[in-house]
Amino acid sequence: MSVIANTPKPPYFAVIFTSIRTEGDEGYGATADRMVELAEQQEGFLGVESAREGVGITVSYWRDLDSIKNWKANSEHLDAQKTGRKSWYESFKVRISKVERDYGL
Amino acid sequence: MSVIANTPKPPYFAVIFTSIRTEGDEGYGATADRMVELAEQQEGFLGVESAREGVGITVSYWRDLDSIKNWKANSEHLDAQKTGRKSWYESFKVRISKVERDYGL
Repeated sequence: MSVIANTPKPPYFAVIFTSIRTEGDEGYGATADRMVELAEQQEGFLGVESAREGVGITVSYWRDLDSIKNWKANSEHLDAQKTGRKSWYESFKVRISKVERDYGL
Repeated sequence: MSVIANTPKPPYFAVIFTSIRTEGDEGYGATADRMVELAEQQEGFLGVESAREGVGITVSYWRDLDSIKNWKANSEHLDAQKTGRKSWYESFKVRISKVERDYGL
């Protein structure tokens, strides 16, 4: 996902997911791709940006807090979250934030 | 910066800076390092996370909007912003957001 998300005018919401991976793939790559595909189909999804270089940072953008709540509760996503905690991530942090202003080039 | 920022309890603020670089270094690497060093000295700075993989994502965390405003107006940072627009970045987006909730592993 090497693009800058084309988000609408603020306000909207950003979920900042920062993680340190464990060694080995263990099905991580395929699931990560699938989660992006699945997220894109969710109501209220606005875009996603992702990069890993030592630390991994994935920022997904959402219309409102309800969209984020629904995505968190998606059953296929719940399975991925479970495996993430158990085997893919050494540590991670999820931050739910409200984008109030943006500008760019 | 391959660590997850050790931020305090929300609320606090996140500046999500997403960018696509131009070709060549043109002094970018040294300035990027210097900007992290300088940001860390600013009042209200809480941490930073950064990764580049196609797209670059740097998320810096701040106590309040005034800290962000002061950092944006820092003279050495202003010079870097100018060169960034002129030569380092093909495109970028800055999003100012308020972190309302976080959790992790």
